[in-house]
Amino acid sequence: MKIFDERKSSAEEISRLLKKKAFDEVELSPRVAAGTEKMFGQKLTAAQVVDRIVGEIRKGGDERLFYYTKLLDGGDFTKDTIAVTEKEFEEAEKAVDTKTMEAISRAISNVRKFHEEQLPKTWLTPRAYGSFLGQKMTPVDSVGIYVPGGTAAYPSSVIMNAVPAMVAGVPRIVMAAPASRDGRMNPYVLATARKIGITEIYKMGGAQAVAALAFGTETIPKVEKITGPGNIFVTLAKKAVYGHVDIDMLAGPSEILIVADQTGNPKYLAADLLSQAEHDPLACAILITCDEPLARAVAREVDEQLEALPRKEIAETSLAQTGKIILAKDMDTVVQMANLSAPEHMEIMTENAFSLVPRIRNAGAIFLGAYSPEPLGDYYAGPNHILPTGGTARFYSVLNVETFMKKTSLISYTREALKEAADDIIAMAEAEGLKAHANAIRVRKGEL
Amino acid sequence: MKIFDERKSSAEEISRLLKKKAFDEVELSPRVAAGTEKMFGQKLTAAQVVDRIVGEIRKGGDERLFYYTKLLDGGDFTKDTIAVTEKEFEEAEKAVDTKTMEAISRAISNVRKFHEEQLPKTWLTPRAYGSFLGQKMTPVDSVGIYVPGGTAAYPSSVIMNAVPAMVAGVPRIVMAAPASRDGRMNPYVLATARKIGITEIYKMGGAQAVAALAFGTETIPKVEKITGPGNIFVTLAKKAVYGHVDIDMLAGPSEILIVADQTGNPKYLAADLLSQAEHDPLACAILITCDEPLARAVAREVDEQLEALPRKEIAETSLAQTGKIILAKDMDTVVQMANLSAPEHMEIMTENAFSLVPRIRNAGAIFLGAYSPEPLGDYYAGPNHILPTGGTARFYSVLNVETFMKKTSLISYTREALKEAADDIIAMAEAEGLKAHANAIRVRKGEL
Repeated sequence: MKIFDERKSSAEEISRLLKKKAFDEVELSPRVAAGTEKMFGQKLTAAQVVDRIVGEIRKGGDERLFYYTKLLDGGDFTKDTIAVTEKEFEEAEKAVDTKTMEAISRAISNVRKFHEEQLPKTWLTPRAYGSFLGQKMTPVDSVGIYVPGGTAAYPSSVIMNAVPAMVAGVPRIVMAAPASRDGRMNPYVLATARKIGITEIYKMGGAQAVAALAFGTETIPKVEKITGPGNIFVTLAKKAVYGHVDIDMLAGPSEILIVADQTGNPKYLAADLLSQAEHDPLACAILITCDEPLARAVAREVDEQLEALPRKEIAETSLAQTGKIILAKDMDTVVQMANLSAPEHMEIMTENAFSLVPRIRNAGAIFLGAYSPEPLGDYYAGPNHILPTGGTARFYSVLNVETFMKKTSLISYTREALKEAADDIIAMAEAEGLKAHANAIRVRKGEL
Repeated sequence: MKIFDERKSSAEEISRLLKKKAFDEVELSPRVAAGTEKMFGQKLTAAQVVDRIVGEIRKGGDERLFYYTKLLDGGDFTKDTIAVTEKEFEEAEKAVDTKTMEAISRAISNVRKFHEEQLPKTWLTPRAYGSFLGQKMTPVDSVGIYVPGGTAAYPSSVIMNAVPAMVAGVPRIVMAAPASRDGRMNPYVLATARKIGITEIYKMGGAQAVAALAFGTETIPKVEKITGPGNIFVTLAKKAVYGHVDIDMLAGPSEILIVADQTGNPKYLAADLLSQAEHDPLACAILITCDEPLARAVAREVDEQLEALPRKEIAETSLAQTGKIILAKDMDTVVQMANLSAPEHMEIMTENAFSLVPRIRNAGAIFLGAYSPEPLGDYYAGPNHILPTGGTARFYSVLNVETFMKKTSLISYTREALKEAADDIIAMAEAEGLKAHANAIRVRKGEL
C-alpha cells in the first residue's frame, strides 16, 4: 500500500488529495455504460437512464416495472409472482445455516436495544396561564426499505434498515430487494427479514424498485419514505423521487479513515483497511498518522494480508485507486483533515481515543480504540451501518429511529395567554402587511 | 365561501376532493411563464429554468450569479456590493418602528426558549465489560438560510430560520434574501437579522441564491445545508442541489385545515381561514365539521370579513380555487380525512381538542382550542412556522433544532467484549462472503 509523506502539508492540502466525487459526477464503468447503451439504443448518462425509468414507471405502473425488472435484474415476474411467497420464505429458512442465524438473532437483539435507546418521546412544556407547547413524534405511515443485491447479498442491510423502522413503530414496512438473474432471493436475506417480522417483500431492485415504491403501481404500494443503500442507479432514483417521498440520504461507495498514533497495532489496522477495500473497487480506505514506523509497518501488513483474500482483486483495485497511508506533521493537522474529509467510518486508534471525539465534527460513525474494528459496527454492536458517504457526513446523519418519524408542533394557548401576546402579534402581522393575520387575533379580543 | 355537503362520503372520497399538486406538477402563472420565455428566448418549464440557472452558477460562479440577480431580482450588484454593509444595517435600524421591534424581540425570545427545549444532547450508553455505545450530536459547520421577499417581506421568516440554527450552535450562518427591484432590503428583515446576531447577508434570491450557497462562488461561501421557504423556483433549486448539500424540505403554498364541532366560534374560524387565504392565490384554507349550522355561519362570516381586507383579491382567488367548507358525517371520518390530507397547519376547535391529538398522524403543526389561532404560531408562541406543505407532512417534520445538527454513532468495545462477539461477527461476515471483514475480527483474536 502506498505511503504519502505529507508532513509539509496543511490539512486543506491533504484533504484536496482525497477529493471525493459528488454522486452526480461518478462515471459508469465501461461495462455498465456499454450495457445501458445496448439496452436503450443510445448513449445515456446514468441520470438520464434513471429519469427515463422513473418517468415510465410513474406513468406506466406494473407493466413498466415488470419490463425493467426483467431487463435489468433478470427475473420474469408478474403481479402474482413479484411478492415473496410463504413457500419462498420456508425454502429460505431450510437453506440457511443454524449457527449463522443464531448470530443474526443476537445482532438483531443488539441493534434493537441500541435503537430503542434512541426512541424520542412526544413532549409538552408549560407556558403561562395554563398554556402549553409541545412536539409530537409520529412514525411515518409506511416505509420502503431497499436491500441491495449485486456482488454480495447483505442480510445485515435488512437488519439495519428494518429494525429502526420497527422500533419507530412504522405500521407498514415494505422491503424491496433484487432477485438474482434466475429469479431467486438470497436465503439469508429472506430468513433475516422474516425473523424481524418483515413479510411484505418485492423482488425488484434498481431505479425501477425506487420508482415503484415512490409512486405506487397496481401491485406495489406507494410508501412515504424510502431508505437504504444501493448502487448509483438506486441513488439517482432516490434523488429523482425526493419530495414525492422522503429519503434517508444519497449514499455512494463505502469508505474508512483510520486515525492512528504509535500505539496502533499494524496487523489490526491493515485488516481494517482491507475490510473496507474488499467492498467495492470504488471503496476508499485511508490511514492517517504522524508515526512513520507505523505507516511502514501497516503498508507491509496490507500487502501480506491482501494475498489470502478471496476478493483480492476488488481490494487491490480499491487500494490502487483511492487507498492511501498518509504521514501528517501533527495531531492537529490529522483532526482538521479528518473533519474536512468527513468520512463514513472513522476509526480512532490512539492512546486516548476518546479525547479526540469532542474535536470530530464530521463523521458517520466513530470507532474508538483497538478493539472496535469497523465490522463490529457493520454487523453487530447496535448502531446503524447505513451511513453518509462521500463527505456527506458534513450534513447527513447515520440512519436512526428518527429517520422513520416526523415532528409535529403542538400549540395550546388560553384566553389570558393570547390576550397578553395579542398586541405583539398584531404589530408583527401589520409590519408584514398581513391584515387578516392581525384580524385572527383581533377577533379574539372582541375587536372585530 | 362554498359549502360541500359530503355527509355521504368516506374520508378517502373527501380527500380526493382536496387533491394537492406535487411540487413538480405546479404550473407557472401566465405572467411568470411569459416572463421566463422572454428572458430565455424559448418556452421552458420551471424545472428547466432552474436546471439552467443552477448549472450555470455551479460552473460560472460570481459572474453568472450577478447576471441572474440583475435579470430576475433586479439589483445590480458586484462582489463589493452584494453583501449587506454596516451602513445598510444602520439605515434599516433607523427606519423601523420601535414598538414593532419590541414585539419582534419578545417573539425571538419565545422562539429561542422553545427551540432550546428541543436541543438534543450527545449520549453514551454502557455495554458489557466496560464497552459503550453512543450518539454524538454536532451542529453543521455552516448553513444558508433563505428568506423570501416577493409580495410581502417576512421578518418572521428570519426569526424562524435563524434562531434554531443559533440554538443548534451552527458556527457560520449565512442569510440570503432578495432585494427589491431598486436594490434595497426590507428594513425589518435586516433589523431582525442583526438583533438575532446574523450579519453575513447576501442580497440575492431565487434559484440563483440557492445555487450560489450550494456550490459557492468567488464571493458567496459554500454552505452545508440550506433551509427556508421560497417560491417554486427556490423549491426546485433546493431539489436540484439536494445531495450536494442537505436541505430542510421542499415546501409549496401555505395551507390550513380546521377541524371544528358545534362549539366552534364562527367569527374566529372565518378569521383563521382568511389569514391563510390572504398569503397567496395558491394558498389553501379548508374547514371540516359535522355541524351544519356552524358551516353556514362560517361561510357567511368569511364573506363579510373578506370585504375589509387589503389583500382581498388574493384571498378571494385562493378561496375560489381551493377554499372549502366540508360537511362530514362523523368525527371518525374527519380525523381520517385530516390524516389523509396531512395539512401544514391544523386547527382543532372542538370541545375537547386535546383528545384528538393522539389520533392525528400527519400534520405540520396542530393548534388546539379557540385561543390558539394560526398567526400565534406564525409569529410568536415559539414553535417554528417553517412547515411541510402539500401533503408532505406525511414524511417531513416542522423545522427544528435538529434540522441544523447531525448524528454520529460512537462505538467503543473492550477486548473482552469483542471476544464474546467475535464468533457471531465472523459467521455473519462469512455468510455475506466478506472474508476481510471476518479477518478484522480474527486478527484481534490472535488467529491471523
